[in-house]
Order: sequence, then C-alpha cells, then structure tokens
Amino acid sequence: MNKEIKNIAIIGTGVIGNGWIARFIAKGYNVTAFDLAEGAEERTRAMLNRVWPSLKELGISDIASQDNLSFVTTLEEAVATADYVQENVPEREELKKSVLQSIDANTNPNVIIGSSTSGIMPSTLQDGLKNPERLIVAHPFNPVYILPLVEIVGGEKTSKETIERADALLTAIAMKPLIVTKEIEGHIADRLMEALWREALHLVNDGIATTEEVDKAIIYGAGLRWAQMGPFMTFHLAGGDAGMRHMLEQFGPALKLPWTKLEAPELTDELKERVITGSEKSAGNLSVAELEEKRNEFLVKQLELVADYWPVFSNKSE
Amino acid sequence: MNKEIKNIAIIGTGVIGNGWIARFIAKGYNVTAFDLAEGAEERTRAMLNRVWPSLKELGISDIASQDNLSFVTTLEEAVATADYVQENVPEREELKKSVLQSIDANTNPNVIIGSSTSGIMPSTLQDGLKNPERLIVAHPFNPVYILPLVEIVGGEKTSKETIERADALLTAIAMKPLIVTKEIEGHIADRLMEALWREALHLVNDGIATTEEVDKAIIYGAGLRWAQMGPFMTFHLAGGDAGMRHMLEQFGPALKLPWTKLEAPELTDELKERVITGSEKSAGNLSVAELEEKRNEFLVKQLELVADYWPVFSNKSE
Repeated sequence: MNKEIKNIAIIGTGVIGNGWIARFIAKGYNVTAFDLAEGAEERTRAMLNRVWPSLKELGISDIASQDNLSFVTTLEEAVATADYVQENVPEREELKKSVLQSIDANTNPNVIIGSSTSGIMPSTLQDGLKNPERLIVAHPFNPVYILPLVEIVGGEKTSKETIERADALLTAIAMKPLIVTKEIEGHIADRLMEALWREALHLVNDGIATTEEVDKAIIYGAGLRWAQMGPFMTFHLAGGDAGMRHMLEQFGPALKLPWTKLEAPELTDELKERVITGSEKSAGNLSVAELEEKRNEFLVKQLELVADYWPVFSNKSE
Repeated sequence: MNKEIKNIAIIGTGVIGNGWIARFIAKGYNVTAFDLAEGAEERTRAMLNRVWPSLKELGISDIASQDNLSFVTTLEEAVATADYVQENVPEREELKKSVLQSIDANTNPNVIIGSSTSGIMPSTLQDGLKNPERLIVAHPFNPVYILPLVEIVGGEKTSKETIERADALLTAIAMKPLIVTKEIEGHIADRLMEALWREALHLVNDGIATTEEVDKAIIYGAGLRWAQMGPFMTFHLAGGDAGMRHMLEQFGPALKLPWTKLEAPELTDELKERVITGSEKSAGNLSVAELEEKRNEFLVKQLELVADYWPVFSNKSE
C-alpha cells in the first residue's frame, strides 16, 4: 500500500479503465469512477465479480473491498478528493486533451494525472495544462488487473518527482513499471507488438498463412520463450556458451535476408556492442548453461500448464 | 512411437542437431549421428545427460535409452540404415545442397530427408536431388527437445505422401507440426520473430530503449499472453464481446500510425474478413468471456510459475 496516495479517480471505464479499477480495488485503494456511458457502473461491478477469484489468487489487500468503489455522475466529483487520476477515454487526441484539461482544472497541483494512451506522446497531452509537470503517460496492458507491465512516460514538462511518485504507486499495486525516457509514438511495448502484428497481417494478406496458423506459429514456439525471456535473452541463449556475441557473428549476416516486410537496421559495431553488453548485463552472473537449465525447468512446467488451459486448438493439443 | 520409422540419422550435431537427437532418443528411436567437428560426440552426450531430467518430466518412452545413440565417422554410414534423415549443417545454401545430395545418393528413395534450414526454400534444396519428392524442410525451434513447434515445408517436387509421413513421424515425437503450404524465405514463424527482433534492434539502435528494457517490455506484457495465444487471439480478446470484429473497427485506423519501422498493409475489407472469421474459427464455440476466464486462470498460474523461474531481473521481480 502506497503511503501518500489512497484515493484514486478513474475517468473512463472501458476495458482498460475497468482493469485499473480492479487492480486498485484489489490492492485496498478507494476508487471513484466516472463514465458517461449508459450502464457503465453495472458493467464494471459485473467485471469485478467475475475477476475477483483471479485477484484473490494473485493476492489482495486485507482492506480490499468492492465497496471501496463508487461511481459519480460528474468528472469534477470524481477527481475532487483524488490523490491520483487515471484517464482512459477513447484514443482521440482532442478528446483526451480536453478531458485532461478538465482534470487539471479540478485537482490540486500535487495530484498526479496518468493517461492510458497507447500511442500519444505526453508532451502533446500536457500542452495546455496549467500544471503540466504532474502529467504522465501510464500505459498498461490488457488484462490490466493481471499483467504487470506499465509504461511510465514523462513529457518535456513532466517533473522528475512526478515520475518517482508514479513509479512508487504503480509498484505498490504489484506492477512492473518500465520508465520510458524517450518519447515516441507507441512508446516501446506497442512498437514491438505492432511489428509482430503487422507482419502477421502481411502473412494473412499475402495468403501465406491463416490467422490460426500464425497463432500456432507463436504459441508453440517463441511465445513459450517470450513469457520468460524477451527477444534479446532468447537469442543470448541461442548463441551457445558465447551467448549473444556468437549469435550475432553467426546470424548477423542473415539479418539482411528478405525475411519479414521490416527493413533491418545496419548491424554496426556500436549496435553489436550495445546488444552484446546489454544481454550480458541482463544475464548477470549466470552463464548461458545456467540460464538454459532455468529455462528448461520453466518451459517443461509451462507446457504442462498450457496443456491445462489451452483456450483454442485444444483438440489438437492432445 | 511411429510404426514405419525406427532409425533416425542426424547430420550435423550443433545446437539444433543435438536438440533433434535428444527428442528422438527420448521417444525411443535409434539415432545414428555424424559431425566432422572435433569432440562432437562428447558434447552431444554431455548435453543428453544435462537435459535428461527435463526429457523425463516431459515423458520419455519405455524403450528410450542413451545407448540408442551412436556416432559414426562418415555420412554414408550414418544414413545407411536410416528411415528418416535430418540435416542440420550450417546455414549456407551450397553446403546444404551438397550434403543433401550425398544423403540422397546414399539412401533408398522412400527415406524422408528433412532439412532444419530456417530460411532456405525446399524447392532450392531439392533441386539436383535424384529423388526430390522425399525432401522437406522440417524447421524446429530451440530448445528442440522441449518446444513443440516444427514447420514442415514441401518444395515444388515434394510428394503429398512425404508431407503426410513426416507429419505422422513428428507428431509421434510430441511435436506440433505446422504445415506451411506456401514457400517463402523464413517460412512463417521466423518471419514473425524476425519482425519483433528487427524492431527491437531499431529501438536499441535509435537509443529509445536498452536490451534489458526491450526484454522487460515483452516479458511482463505480451510475452505472458503469447505463450497461450498468438497475436490474433490476443486481439480477439481485446475487442470485448464482439471480439476481433470490434477490435479492427476500433484500432484499425491506428494501424497506419507511425508505430514500428514496419509498413502496415492496407486494411481491406477482404483482409478484415479473413482476420475476423479466422479468429472466430479459432475461438470455436467459446465466447470472448469464456476465453477471458481461461486466459485469466492461465495467466495467474503462469505469473506464479514465472516468479519461480525468473532467469534475470530476479531482484526486480520481487
């Protein structure tokens, strides 16, 4: 439980807003929600009931209660007593800016304002706020109440203190904040996901694979590894004892082959060094052999787990 | 255990060749291996000892024994009694073609020849074989003895019967064959992985993120989902009750935003229909709500599992 922040305002209760509500409520915070849509409160409370067992298994606070959620009928009311406000309105720049300006006008300057935008840069959103230094992008991933990743992005005018306080709050609700130091559209995670998504669409568009085949190509292969390691550590282990250094020597030349519709960057010595030293840093004091042993134990258990919870293709997974 | 195929020849015992050996031995097959490299047999037997516990937990055959592996000193000897030959020499077209021609010249026409090539098209590899109809690409994923995915790709001259027999054999060793019906460089899975990999390299190259940040952006977010669902089913669940149909309406326009270095395809009505009907087919008779419930149960258990086997960032994952 975060020390200074107790009251949360959630503006916009779609899939993402509801995900934030479930996570904050499970961790014992008071949440005041506002959404113009007909039947919004009913949908949110139904969702909370539905996911409560998952929240409990993940670990909820002793003081967590669905009664700590209240819906109000105006934005002003919603943010009046808030220590932290999270905006989750549809991804339209002008709409988000006007909503953020109303939040800005109706809260004390020390109240942090987070936006769930997946693509708009914080400098754009904070333009026009009277207290822009407390605006951040806090971009979560669906399902927000389970996935730990949240990207924290500050704009040109965002204060260092705001980033630190947001980092502390989001860590307190069991998230893994990734502080993005350079503003770009799509931040980091969505750029990676989008690259895979676009290539998948090309494969389907070109008649190379069906959507089911694309999904199987990920599920049975790289997907199992990416749950534990990202692309760099995965390749670090593919390089044998010399790790990424050997991997880049061996597969670097293939980088320019016409695989994917995405142009590869020039594999300069500087880029090589960044990738190699970065991977070695992530490996810490673990050798590739030691990493492989952990990976294998993990993958074996995970395959058993996947077999139990296969959502699709289940007839084919026996 | 496959009925007609008992004896396997593995040509080239690097990381991939050794992975094939471990998988075939664990499933009770006889394997004859050949590799020119100094100390190859010692490395392979050390690997087998190292991964045996994982193989046992995955389930080995009653007749499985490390004694069913023998190394020989010539390719001719290795393939002499083989029912199936898997080639795993370095990814150089001329080298692979000459090795495949020697295998072709020294085996009966009914022996299936598989190549582990990750990028070269089978029509290229079978060109020059006297029995090209029995040549396939059988592209596995590291670690081969654990990951179930294998891409089976036939060339212009590959017979339907060869594909069917290879499918049966690889299914018998607990793999999930993905039969790729159109030849393209990188097949399907590597095109998807390469798109993510290239975007990751761009992010590091442009100084947007470190390799550790890229890995975290995948591990804590999409990676957890991709282990259970590919990109299409993941987005099917992001679309609410209307699934992919709603998702494409809502996020389709954002497809052209300057996220990633990869150009998006035109979202034509035909492409939309393929994606929507494909996703709905994969969902089978499960509603999005039902899929969400399975996903949540899976993700909760998986987070617990990941916490136990975190290979890196472990200090940060508490």
